[in-house]
Amino acid sequence: MDGDAMSELLDDERYAWAALTYLAEPGDPWLAELVRGCGPARALAAIRAGRFPAGRRREAAERAMARWRLRLAGVPEPDEVASHFARGIRLITASDGQWPDGLAELGVNQPYAIWLRGATTDLAALCRRSVAIVGSRAATAYGTYMAAELAASVAARGWTVISGGAYGVDGAAHQGTLAARGATVAVMACGIDRAYPAGHKDLLDGVATAGAVISEWPPGQGVSRLRFLVRNRVIAAITRGCLVVEAGRRSGALNTARHARDLGRPLMALPGPVTSDLSAGCHSIIRDWQGTLVTGADEAIEALDRVGTGVESRAGSGLPRPPARDPASLPFDVPAAQSPRDRPTWEDAARDALDREAAAVLDALPVRGGLPTSDIAARAGLEPATVLARLAVLAVFGLAERTERGWRARHR
Amino acid sequence: MDGDAMSELLDDERYAWAALTYLAEPGDPWLAELVRGCGPARALAAIRAGRFPAGRRREAAERAMARWRLRLAGVPEPDEVASHFARGIRLITASDGQWPDGLAELGVNQPYAIWLRGATTDLAALCRRSVAIVGSRAATAYGTYMAAELAASVAARGWTVISGGAYGVDGAAHQGTLAARGATVAVMACGIDRAYPAGHKDLLDGVATAGAVISEWPPGQGVSRLRFLVRNRVIAAITRGCLVVEAGRRSGALNTARHARDLGRPLMALPGPVTSDLSAGCHSIIRDWQGTLVTGADEAIEALDRVGTGVESRAGSGLPRPPARDPASLPFDVPAAQSPRDRPTWEDAARDALDREAAAVLDALPVRGGLPTSDIAARAGLEPATVLARLAVLAVFGLAERTERGWRARHR
Repeated sequence: MDGDAMSELLDDERYAWAALTYLAEPGDPWLAELVRGCGPARALAAIRAGRFPAGRRREAAERAMARWRLRLAGVPEPDEVASHFARGIRLITASDGQWPDGLAELGVNQPYAIWLRGATTDLAALCRRSVAIVGSRAATAYGTYMAAELAASVAARGWTVISGGAYGVDGAAHQGTLAARGATVAVMACGIDRAYPAGHKDLLDGVATAGAVISEWPPGQGVSRLRFLVRNRVIAAITRGCLVVEAGRRSGALNTARHARDLGRPLMALPGPVTSDLSAGCHSIIRDWQGTLVTGADEAIEALDRVGTGVESRAGSGLPRPPARDPASLPFDVPAAQSPRDRPTWEDAARDALDREAAAVLDALPVRGGLPTSDIAARAGLEPATVLARLAVLAVFGLAERTERGWRARHR
Repeated sequence: MDGDAMSELLDDERYAWAALTYLAEPGDPWLAELVRGCGPARALAAIRAGRFPAGRRREAAERAMARWRLRLAGVPEPDEVASHFARGIRLITASDGQWPDGLAELGVNQPYAIWLRGATTDLAALCRRSVAIVGSRAATAYGTYMAAELAASVAARGWTVISGGAYGVDGAAHQGTLAARGATVAVMACGIDRAYPAGHKDLLDGVATAGAVISEWPPGQGVSRLRFLVRNRVIAAITRGCLVVEAGRRSGALNTARHARDLGRPLMALPGPVTSDLSAGCHSIIRDWQGTLVTGADEAIEALDRVGTGVESRAGSGLPRPPARDPASLPFDVPAAQSPRDRPTWEDAARDALDREAAAVLDALPVRGGLPTSDIAARAGLEPATVLARLAVLAVFGLAERTERGWRARHR
């Protein structure tokens, strides 16, 4: 490990941000509040101590604390984080110049930090002129061909192609970019050291060499259905616009597209035969969301250029950067970290309480109409208070919405 | 022949309209002016006499008179028109209740009369809830399948399907409608007694049985490239909206679509693979003309219903219906008609002077930029005055336009 990486590691705040990515799922409102109040290092210390700074005693906050502490055993020691850095893995925080401009627009929902492996020396610069090319895993020959062709063409004109690393459209977009010797970024729903899907190990290594593989989840972590959806907001936020190549009516790519729309990014879709279910989502984007019909790279770039450099100029209200404080002034004790040997238990059992609860709530939501919290609780097998907390998180991610008749899943 | 048809025949004005469809191509500005001044019967008499009523002595008008008179030999005697009627052929004029509502919106460019064969007893009623389904002759399996499917579905919901009787999309639209036992109208670019294309003879007979085969050209006349384009404005005018199923970038269907747009009709297009040149025109309609992307009959009907019954309420400034006059009061002699035996000469040689001149001018026009009249005249091998007159007609049909740099063909 060289001196720079070591100095990164030795920064308490940076270490704290790394640790927090192990403790909480993205968008946890209680963690956001805790960090906003006292900064990442003291927040980490508070969780280790199991005690909130004075004034934080609400029941839901205490449940959040209990949830985070279930994961404490999984938080690596500083020297273990250092060993990640030694392997070429980096951590980017909102305090860095490398933090992609668009992330701040996610507000309290922006990532705590971004883990990165890859050749890029400036992730922000890489994202400044980028387009998301996303679509179905089960793409047709038409979809994979067009994804590769469009990606290669925009990459050849200096645009970074950003996608999710999955089979089908995502993989074809990365591959097309690599073929054109362009820059590409894969935004993962698992740790950047994991190949997901396994069949894309070589492809993801290629992406790292030609740009970056990034994730808001720390090394070693696996995917989940909810993490894919939560990840999509990052793809939408860091790119200048989003092009959907092939997507069914309930494809995850539509979830990415909606994040892009909500963020005011140009939304584009490739048309296809109406006889193909995999073009239904694209046609819906054009018909129902006023997305731009795009038949080639020129038209995509035209739509992207229409916003100029708006991404940079739209200032967000991101997760506030806590004021620097002297750790010695912390109003509570920082307990010694537990041993990383405990991790298997965490990995197998308590790893993803938030995630599993939220996923259970999501599964219990009706697509049409709406249900009261009590019914959802019965369906999900969870306490109503837990359901309400998870619904709030799902709503922040645009996955649930409240109607006159109760809660329902949002189209995704 | 029954009494009704006989009384139709015996009406001088009706006979005059019939005769005028033999004499002039649609949109002839001098004929429109002549009829506006003295009504169809006196206009016919004037052409036969070779003399304009007093006050019409301009050089261009005299050339028009000479042009019409080249065709005089082809005009049938009243008893020959009666024999058409006896065969079930009918003639509809702007004075009839059957005149489709939308035609008046074509202004001076509306047909002189409509020849019809078919089962319908009310063409106007048939058109009131109708949609044009048009597209490429060289349609793919996708295009023909979708044309038939869309036509059958809208027909099953009570909509009349109107098309051009051609191979490919047009034929599939008619066939799909017939399969659904719906109503359909073929708008021909030749006489309604001619099967064009020949391979569609049985299909056109079926269309007549399930609606109507109509044309503004009289029985016996053949097609020409220009007549197809001129015909398209009628398809656009008599329908509530226009759906393009498959069309290349320079397809005649785009010409129909532009007429529909110019008339304020809902414009719709079926998307397809961007790898297919035959979907390029459809995608252009959606991208560049803000046409509605339509993936099924429901969406088409939704777009059509959006205008309500606007077609009926938009009053046009149609070719004025001349006041009824006593033929005995005509200010000039009506010469005896020439024998129809002369027709072969007309048919073979002088048949289509206007048409051929206009077609030559159209062929001489550049697609981009513009050329002065003198250059076009040199290219077309015509006198500049003739070119100017033909350019005016082509401009009225939206086929030519004047730019800062001269005349050019409009995208069609």
